[in-house]
Amino acid sequence: MLQGPLAVSLGDPAGVGPELIAAAWARRDQLDLPPFFVAGGPEVLAAAARTRSISLPVAQIFHPSEALACFGAALPVLAGADGDYAPGAPSREGSELALASLTEATRLTVEGEAEALVTGPIAKARLAQVGFDHPGQTEFVAEACGVDPGDAVMMLAGPTLRTVPLTVHIPLEQVATALSEALIERKGRIVAMALIRDFGIAAPRLAVAALNPHAGEDGRMGDEEARVIAPAIARLRAEGIAIDGPFPADGLFAPRQRDTFDAALCMYHDQALIPLKALDFDSGVNVTLGLPIIRTSPDHGTAFGIAGTGQADPGALIAAIRMAGECATRRYGA
Amino acid sequence: MLQGPLAVSLGDPAGVGPELIAAAWARRDQLDLPPFFVAGGPEVLAAAARTRSISLPVAQIFHPSEALACFGAALPVLAGADGDYAPGAPSREGSELALASLTEATRLTVEGEAEALVTGPIAKARLAQVGFDHPGQTEFVAEACGVDPGDAVMMLAGPTLRTVPLTVHIPLEQVATALSEALIERKGRIVAMALIRDFGIAAPRLAVAALNPHAGEDGRMGDEEARVIAPAIARLRAEGIAIDGPFPADGLFAPRQRDTFDAALCMYHDQALIPLKALDFDSGVNVTLGLPIIRTSPDHGTAFGIAGTGQADPGALIAAIRMAGECATRRYGA
Repeated sequence: MLQGPLAVSLGDPAGVGPELIAAAWARRDQLDLPPFFVAGGPEVLAAAARTRSISLPVAQIFHPSEALACFGAALPVLAGADGDYAPGAPSREGSELALASLTEATRLTVEGEAEALVTGPIAKARLAQVGFDHPGQTEFVAEACGVDPGDAVMMLAGPTLRTVPLTVHIPLEQVATALSEALIERKGRIVAMALIRDFGIAAPRLAVAALNPHAGEDGRMGDEEARVIAPAIARLRAEGIAIDGPFPADGLFAPRQRDTFDAALCMYHDQALIPLKALDFDSGVNVTLGLPIIRTSPDHGTAFGIAGTGQADPGALIAAIRMAGECATRRYGA
Repeated sequence: MLQGPLAVSLGDPAGVGPELIAAAWARRDQLDLPPFFVAGGPEVLAAAARTRSISLPVAQIFHPSEALACFGAALPVLAGADGDYAPGAPSREGSELALASLTEATRLTVEGEAEALVTGPIAKARLAQVGFDHPGQTEFVAEACGVDPGDAVMMLAGPTLRTVPLTVHIPLEQVATALSEALIERKGRIVAMALIRDFGIAAPRLAVAALNPHAGEDGRMGDEEARVIAPAIARLRAEGIAIDGPFPADGLFAPRQRDTFDAALCMYHDQALIPLKALDFDSGVNVTLGLPIIRTSPDHGTAFGIAGTGQADPGALIAAIRMAGECATRRYGA
């Protein structure tokens, strides 16, 4: 049992965030979800719930500590910003609400008023129009924690697989140049530590994907494996981390091989996200490792195109809430 | 019913090829496999069958036309090269046998004595030591057909997914430079034609994967989508091909999206092979499109490490044999 609630940010109110929060709350007992509150948006949440025929009593609260008592009977929503619900029609006002909710939920978690942070999906380009000058929510949260965004490591976690993209939002052509021994080592250490501390894996096994086809085939198709990746692996092994590779990336996520590791370190965005979304689409969680707080997020976007239609699957948000609760219990004790 | 048999090459005799051929033949009735013969290696095949406790009568034949009559009672093996069976211990003699078998099976298919070619797994680097100077079997077969290897298109096909890597055995860093509108158009046409002619899909739907994360996100993470990929797609659409994209590659193989196309054109090796092996590992077939003959191959290597242990799964070879028979029936008529 957690000491306090999780903080959930609304996401873009024109996206699927609000309706999925309502859907998750409606299944709180059935799935034994940890208690959470939403930062702002009571009217948006109530209206979004109606589009899915969810009966959603909203309990306006003024402090996170009030959430535990009312979570069973109503969705606790922190008094603050609100707006109109216009699914599929993102607006400047909606972006401002999304940013206010993210800012407040993050602040409360950093200050220890919430046990963990779960962020709803935003549209980065739209948030940029209202003053959000970060590449994504991960970097925003890292800065709020006083952590160098380079030390905030994105891990994608599903029931089948955990993958970590070591480079993220850069053109594919720049990936080889962006990789370095130092990068692999720094992020490898953060992943190993997080699997022990937050995921309860006493001796985590890491697998490292190669950059080039067939892991470069002895240098015939690229030399980054020998020049950059293998030395970094050797150094991490020397520190006692159970890490192996580089393995040809195409076979690494095949049924038998994916059972041999707890997380795969991947060289670029799609190498990590293709297998995760192919295998764990409706239950993939984006976890930020290396922070003083616990932060998770569903591994999907705002999905403006289907917002308000009832088609969006709450599986990933539910998995993000559950994982945030589990990690917090492990890190802070039950 | 085919007019003739399929030709199967042995693959490296120290790998899993021979035992999987024996395992496939043993299930010929149960799975209603099309008749096939093997080019050479009768002793190797008999010894490999014993490691899996398969009762394998071998019928030595001198011409492919003899295969149909005996296939029900024995595995037809064309008289020719043979050798010792030493699983897991590749040798120069073994490489020579593999090359002789490949050469003979290819020749007979090109000359029309066999309906299609199924190649067993080889170790390229080892074959190179005995004079094989092609990047892989695909290029070897293309040249034997008098086709520019650039027009021989590799497609990976499983029960869940078909993917085509537009660039293959090059370093990841060179992929962006290797892509061109002309390349995408030429291979896109070959894939569309093959799906109609050999796979019986009257109006094939092609999806094109983006190169960069989030399909470049309007140029913020690379411009190849707008500069190279989109114009090629537009031109193919103007020719009447149902082709769409570029789509962010990470979502393209997720459950709902992968049902919207018959084949995905991918920008690089691992983009095509990661999802295929994650989803269809033990039944992935490598099909060469754009040739005057039909050629398939199991989508796995020699697996020297488990050869002779009985662990190798014959699913992919069986799928390759079945697909070769189906494609031949469609192309040449029943």
